[in-house]
Amino acid sequence: MIDHTHDPAALSWVAAANDPATDFPLQNLPFCRFRERGSLAPWRIGVGIGDRILDLAGWGIDDLNALMGRPRAERVALRHRLFDALKAGAPEIPLLLQAQAEFALPCRIGDYTDFYTGIHHARAVGRLFRPDNPLLPNYQWVPIGYHGRSSSIVVSGTPIRRPRGQVKPPDADGPVFQPSARIDCELELGLFVGPGNALGQPFSIDEADDHAFGLTLLNDWSARDIQPWEYQPLGPFLAKNFGTTISPWIVTMEALEPFRLPFTRPPEDPQPLPYLDSPTHRAGAAYDIALEVWLQTTAMAAPTRLSRSNLRHAYWSLAQMLTHHASNGCNLQPGDLLGTGTISGPAPEEAGSLLELTAGGRQPVTLANGEQRTFLRDGDQLGLRAFAEKPGFRRLGFGPCDGVITAAV
Amino acid sequence: MIDHTHDPAALSWVAAANDPATDFPLQNLPFCRFRERGSLAPWRIGVGIGDRILDLAGWGIDDLNALMGRPRAERVALRHRLFDALKAGAPEIPLLLQAQAEFALPCRIGDYTDFYTGIHHARAVGRLFRPDNPLLPNYQWVPIGYHGRSSSIVVSGTPIRRPRGQVKPPDADGPVFQPSARIDCELELGLFVGPGNALGQPFSIDEADDHAFGLTLLNDWSARDIQPWEYQPLGPFLAKNFGTTISPWIVTMEALEPFRLPFTRPPEDPQPLPYLDSPTHRAGAAYDIALEVWLQTTAMAAPTRLSRSNLRHAYWSLAQMLTHHASNGCNLQPGDLLGTGTISGPAPEEAGSLLELTAGGRQPVTLANGEQRTFLRDGDQLGLRAFAEKPGFRRLGFGPCDGVITAAV
Repeated sequence: MIDHTHDPAALSWVAAANDPATDFPLQNLPFCRFRERGSLAPWRIGVGIGDRILDLAGWGIDDLNALMGRPRAERVALRHRLFDALKAGAPEIPLLLQAQAEFALPCRIGDYTDFYTGIHHARAVGRLFRPDNPLLPNYQWVPIGYHGRSSSIVVSGTPIRRPRGQVKPPDADGPVFQPSARIDCELELGLFVGPGNALGQPFSIDEADDHAFGLTLLNDWSARDIQPWEYQPLGPFLAKNFGTTISPWIVTMEALEPFRLPFTRPPEDPQPLPYLDSPTHRAGAAYDIALEVWLQTTAMAAPTRLSRSNLRHAYWSLAQMLTHHASNGCNLQPGDLLGTGTISGPAPEEAGSLLELTAGGRQPVTLANGEQRTFLRDGDQLGLRAFAEKPGFRRLGFGPCDGVITAAV
Repeated sequence: MIDHTHDPAALSWVAAANDPATDFPLQNLPFCRFRERGSLAPWRIGVGIGDRILDLAGWGIDDLNALMGRPRAERVALRHRLFDALKAGAPEIPLLLQAQAEFALPCRIGDYTDFYTGIHHARAVGRLFRPDNPLLPNYQWVPIGYHGRSSSIVVSGTPIRRPRGQVKPPDADGPVFQPSARIDCELELGLFVGPGNALGQPFSIDEADDHAFGLTLLNDWSARDIQPWEYQPLGPFLAKNFGTTISPWIVTMEALEPFRLPFTRPPEDPQPLPYLDSPTHRAGAAYDIALEVWLQTTAMAAPTRLSRSNLRHAYWSLAQMLTHHASNGCNLQPGDLLGTGTISGPAPEEAGSLLELTAGGRQPVTLANGEQRTFLRDGDQLGLRAFAEKPGFRRLGFGPCDGVITAAV
């Protein structure tokens, strides 16, 4: 529903929210969990506005999972109340500078599932392993996904320790246990689940939006030398679960409403089965959200952009991810996190992982300062960024999703 | 440590605990979470003794996750205190009859991982898909595991709704979405994690026992017609996450101490890499725990046994599961659950799944009453049982792990 909270002319009494370059204008209002940096105060739920945070403790909101569990209409009503409290002319109230805050994971993530909706990523990775048959026969029928590890999801800024693991050199008889030499990023968005469903009770594709709370940036760190040896037949495990970074901010689906796009498939492709299809879904289940990968090595004074892509390239929609996940009766719960999988664009330079950008590690990328990289080195800081922009609307950003690689223990 | 709490001559003042056939003699003392059946009282932590439950509310224990997080020495000390309170001669205290109780999941299960340590199962299933190469090259080097779904883990007695899902008939161009026709059980034990480790801080194989709290029975319900279509390349997903049943009881590792066995590999097999091996581990990391599968159809007055196996057939130990899982720095947390995978014995009739017992659904099993089954029908009640027994010790049981299949919605 596009209403006055998306009016690009609406201004805030928080000056920085009116800066055209801010991630957090009055039209965004993303959630976070925060406290004063260095304090031992309890974590609180907040809303980002310009360079500040509105503390929701006084609003009776101290648990984002509880809010996620409420019906969509209540989330819309809260958005309107927040908008009214922060718009120009409303009485000013105390806010905390984001620069003075530290952030935690925004909610309790009961289960984390990672999908594989980036078809250009699936094709590019498949081509490295199966040149003649890059896309498996199920890919265009099933929204492929797998369960990830919840405990090792960390908030932006948390260092990522280089993992050790079993690596099998092609010419060796057996594997060796050693630090991974092929640490990679994966450019994803993560969808936080709203109310969800009871065990054994699926929902329809047209109900899916009720269960979508909001989006965060997500970096699915991957150890590319551990992955091929361990992943058959049950999928990735230790190659992934040493750490997953998300941004501190959840941009709500209500804020992203203006950036919907029709969901279409090339006519020559298999069309979605009826449980994953509807006229409403076709009309607007895709989203236009720009995605970027940035790298700063220890030799750089500022990060350099490695790649850019867009969520519109996803082969399966957020609503299809939700509907398929619950289609067998699996219960989704408030605060569960669904990763999109790596969203690479169609062009090689739009890839969302180093695996793709370097053709499996065979062609190093040359950085702005002349350095080269295949995979990440200790000290490298990898950052994801995302924003939605469109003529007639304010640009909305997602905040940072950063992590630095530290040496193996 | 085998101490006086394993003395087979020790008796309890609870008469039923002295019955040789009980699952819960004084030497067992398993944990559960319970309340009076039909009440709305808060769930409480209890200990099973004979046909009764000791309520631990008066012992200051109201959260099993907190207890799991304590050092092993405290768990041993608690076992001694419970033993002393329930042994013959100690003053009698009020207990609840198990028949008057209802049970919940014993703790909050943050993350659930399912391993694949049953080599006879892996070979038998592999043979169905790859007759010439049943065991993949990594199997004897890597303890294969994958992340499962926490939200759909239910306690024994919870009905299991037959899932719908995408099924691809071999001769069809595309899949159909329909109720699964191949619902199967998987005979497993589940290991509850004790204190665990911080992110980025692995532990050694000789520290693993400190992080093992206890075992429960686990049925990893599987939809065998959904699984082959969806599982490439990221592993099982909707074929598994519609429900996982565990028994209400956690039998502690302290109770199972007398049932340790040496952990050995055939000398012609690859031996474990150094991070998964030690003299202490070789001396006693396996366990002698008998496992059984029982089925009761709606035409039967009592269940019939389908299969029996033993945890000693696992190719990887519980300590290796823990150590490998954390070897890349992945953080294990109190209450996390690690399934062993299906533990089939070496003989065909010792298989822990219908998939194996029926040669992939091609050879129905004939039940005691003349009925036949390939996979489970609506109304079938499937139960797992386990016990440890050995001359010179009391027999310890695990309680029931039951579920009935209900019709698809």
